[in-house]
Parts: sequence; structure tokens; C-alpha cells
Amino acid sequence: MSGESTYADWIAVDWGTSNMRAWALRDGAVLAEGRSDKGMGSLAPDEFEAALLEVIEPWLGQNRIPLVACGMVGAKQGWAEAAYSKVPCLPVGPGAVRPKVRDTRLDVAILPGLSQADPADVMRGEETQIAGYLAKDPEFDGVLCMPGTHTKWVQISAGEVVSFRTFMTGEMFALMSEQSVLKHSVGNGWDASAFETAVADAMSRPEALANRFFSLRAEGLLAGLSSEAATARLSGLLIGAELAAARPYWLGQNIVLIGAPKLATLYATALALQGAVTETADATQTTLAGLTAAYIRLKETS
Amino acid sequence: MSGESTYADWIAVDWGTSNMRAWALRDGAVLAEGRSDKGMGSLAPDEFEAALLEVIEPWLGQNRIPLVACGMVGAKQGWAEAAYSKVPCLPVGPGAVRPKVRDTRLDVAILPGLSQADPADVMRGEETQIAGYLAKDPEFDGVLCMPGTHTKWVQISAGEVVSFRTFMTGEMFALMSEQSVLKHSVGNGWDASAFETAVADAMSRPEALANRFFSLRAEGLLAGLSSEAATARLSGLLIGAELAAARPYWLGQNIVLIGAPKLATLYATALALQGAVTETADATQTTLAGLTAAYIRLKETS
Repeated sequence: MSGESTYADWIAVDWGTSNMRAWALRDGAVLAEGRSDKGMGSLAPDEFEAALLEVIEPWLGQNRIPLVACGMVGAKQGWAEAAYSKVPCLPVGPGAVRPKVRDTRLDVAILPGLSQADPADVMRGEETQIAGYLAKDPEFDGVLCMPGTHTKWVQISAGEVVSFRTFMTGEMFALMSEQSVLKHSVGNGWDASAFETAVADAMSRPEALANRFFSLRAEGLLAGLSSEAATARLSGLLIGAELAAARPYWLGQNIVLIGAPKLATLYATALALQGAVTETADATQTTLAGLTAAYIRLKETS
Repeated sequence: MSGESTYADWIAVDWGTSNMRAWALRDGAVLAEGRSDKGMGSLAPDEFEAALLEVIEPWLGQNRIPLVACGMVGAKQGWAEAAYSKVPCLPVGPGAVRPKVRDTRLDVAILPGLSQADPADVMRGEETQIAGYLAKDPEFDGVLCMPGTHTKWVQISAGEVVSFRTFMTGEMFALMSEQSVLKHSVGNGWDASAFETAVADAMSRPEALANRFFSLRAEGLLAGLSSEAATARLSGLLIGAELAAARPYWLGQNIVLIGAPKLATLYATALALQGAVTETADATQTTLAGLTAAYIRLKETS
């Protein structure tokens, strides 16, 4: 076995605002993976190449290697801007940008995100997961729900993204539980029944969110509400309001959840309470499948 | 004129979570005022007396002086806990606590806040403003709206607080505009028409808040939404949702707004769009009137 044969064919990169993950791939298998806390949000354009090499240097041979990246790395404030593709469109079509690199071993392509004019919306990264899901199930017709900091609801038909909506639910949960007065009320535990009650409460009275939040604090002071119940209710109130607004995206639809397992389970639970049946797909595998589909496509078209 | 005559009869203190204000009073007139950033949130119980003296020491003579304080200073984590009075009740009734002090010149009384069992709610500080407003207009029957970090809507009848609701609208605005991804979209300016449109939008679709928030970011990226419009819409969406939930508190009611002038004006504008007529009362004057009413009452009952 020559030394060269242990090197990767190509490298997949998921580069978000707060961190980066990379995988060395050969013949469809992951040879190695790495990650870095140097997300797009902490890097100037001329710092991306060095941050990348810190993670992938051990995987490089002497040959030039293709690298396909998705996520906020392609934002205006990122390494190089990959202009949004406008829906309706393929999740990952043409439009990859190739940033200038100093290291001659690198051949970097950054995938574009998607935009929607009305109502205005954008995504960077999730489009690659959508492409990954469709690579596995090209005939899928339905909705992908991608819970996270900014949860996406995406309508898919005939292999294209038809429309989507973003909800800041995850970021609001983080801010309310870590930075607001509710930080004194919440904790690490969980109360499943409190979550379910809060989902139903918010779906019927979503306008009362800012009042229900304060009630968590007041019930803690007056009635000894547990931190488990407060945490679960905060989450349930936010997800319930989101479900009330996203109703056209889930009512009577095929729904696939793609996200961190714990969070995806919460969405599945909340949707089940509305009688909606969901499937789930692994987020990391879906990202890798999408980057792989883009890699194959770029190889074919180059 | 003796030196003693320049000293205060008593001292009024409004001590919140993040700061403290104090006034030296004599014969109903303010002789001096001071403030400190040493709010309840940054002090251990045995640090309050020193923090107080830093501000009021110049106002002390040789005699013992009454001092009446309201706000979070009376919370469990404050100087000394003043147990909540339960509504329906007078805004400031009996129940003041007297913390132990080392300095024999100080005679400190801390006023209790109010609590409501169902729905659970609490206030500390606003009850004193309510008492101040009622000292001026004892026959008032209607609603006091006190916009702030935690906006209070308070139903008043026959001189008592009948019920109230707290909304975390102000804290949510601060977190979303300063800590979330929207910090890149908002600014210091204002767009009055964007505010009004957002109030109406949130009143009709309050469940979509987490989506509308992200739209501010997306419209900034895609359509050049100005920071003035984004700021005003963020505020309008939050206040609009609050008005939708607080409807029983303002529909067909006499409404008096007590709060920082800019914020009170926003609430007045939003309420006027719903056909509701409001009056305003000065927040600081109302606080002082409430502390004065409590001082007189304490003097009479001691």
C-alpha cells in the first residue's frame, strides 16, 4: 500500500457561524473528521484558509484536493460570497464560488445558499442538507423541518425547494433561558407533561408569549414551580407558537425532521399532539450526503 | 438659619435591580437627589447599607432620619425581604420591613410588592407608582399601563389593585436587538410608519413573531431594509403581540401610561391605532408621590 493511498479523494466542510466541521472522504467512506471553534463569525476573510488548514493539514498529500464547503462561510462576511439561489430552484444548483487560496494543494468550492423574495427569507447550510435528503429520496414531496437556532420549514416538490420559512425559536430559547430574568427559573432538567401543556397553551394563545414567560418567574417565586417545568414550558411555549404559525407547512403534509436528536424529538412530540406524523433523518449524515452530491456534480461539470 | 435646617425630613429611595435613585425631601420639596449603579442585582444583603450611604451621606445630620424604599431592594435576594401583599389589595398597605442597620442615623422601611395567585404574577416598585397615582386621583377607576423592561397592566377599582399582568416585552426587545442575529439589522433610528405596520401585523398574526423577527434580517440582506425600519418593526411586533394579549386591559377602559416618555409614547401610538385613548403620568413624579404617601402613612401608624 503506497502512502498516497491513505489520502482523501476530497474533503467535505460544514462551516457555520460558530464552528466548522470537516470530513476526509475516499470512495464514499469517511477516513477522518475534525472540527474547529473558528466559525465564520470569528474570522476575517483572509483568516479562513489558515483556520481550515489547522484541521485538514494531516489529510493532505502532494496532490491538489477538491474541497466542498457549505454554510455561512459563503456569506457576505464569510470567506467568499456565494450569491443566493432564488427559490423555486434546486437546493444545490450552480453558483459555487472558488475563493483564492495560497496553498496550491487546495481547490475550494463554496456552495450558495437559498433566498426567497416574499416573504423575505434566507438559508445557508440547510440547502445542502435538503440536497442530501433528496439524493436519498429523489421523489420526496412534502416538508422538511430543520429545527435549530433558526428553525427552517421547507416545502419540497419535484426535486425543488418551493418555499420556506425561518423561525428564530432556538435563538429566542437560548436568550430567554440564559440572558433574561428567566435564567433564575430554568435548569437542565425536563418535565414532559409541562412541555405538552405549554405547546397547547401557546397554540391557542400565541399572543400571550411575553406574559407566559414572566409567569414562569412568578410561579417559581410564588408556587415553587420547578426548574424542570419552567424549562420545558419555556420550550413548549416557543415551539407551540411556531407550530401555530407554520400550520400550512405541517397540516396534512409528509414531514421529515432533520436536526439535533433531542430537539427533533421535541418537535416530533409537539407535532404528534396535533396529530401530525413525522419521520426523522440524521442531520450529520444528511449534510454529508448533500456535500457528496455537490462534489459529484462539480466533478461532472468541471 | 441653623445648619440643621438644610437637612432633609426624610429620604425616598427607588432601588431596582440595576440601579438606585434617592431623593432628600423636606416639606414636600426635593432638596437633593442622587443615583447609583449599585442595583439590587449586584449587591449582597450586607452591602446595601454602604451602597446607600455612598449616595445619601451628604444629606444626613445628627438626627435619625426616616427612609422609605421601594423596588427589588425588598426581594428575597435583596436587603431584606418584604413579603408580597396579595391582590386584590391597596397598592401600598401594611407590611413594610425594617432591615437591621449599623448607622444609627438611619431608620429604613422597605415597602412590599404585590403578588397575584392566578395567573401567577408579581411586581416590586410599580405598586408604589400606583399608590402615587392614586394619591393624586383617589377615585380613578381604570387601567394603569407601565411600560418598561417588564411592562405591567394593572386594573384599578375603588382604590385597590384588582388584577395585573406582566409582559417581558422590554426585556425581549433588548435581547433581540442587542444579543441576537438582529443586532446586525437594527440601529438607533426610527421609522414611525414601519412601527405602525408591525403593530397591526403582530395583532393579527401574533403567532408568527419568531418568523417575522428573522424576516427583518432577511429583508436587510435581500432588499436593503433600513436599520430604522428594522428597529421600529422589532418594537412594533413585540408591542403589537402584547396589545393582542392585553386586550381585556385596554378595550373600553380609561388608560393611563406611566413610564419613560419615549416608550410611553410608543404604547400611546399603538393603542391609538386601536382606537384607545390614553393619558400619561410622569414616572418619576409618580414614584415620588407613592413613596411620599407611604412615608406619611408610616409616620401616622408608628
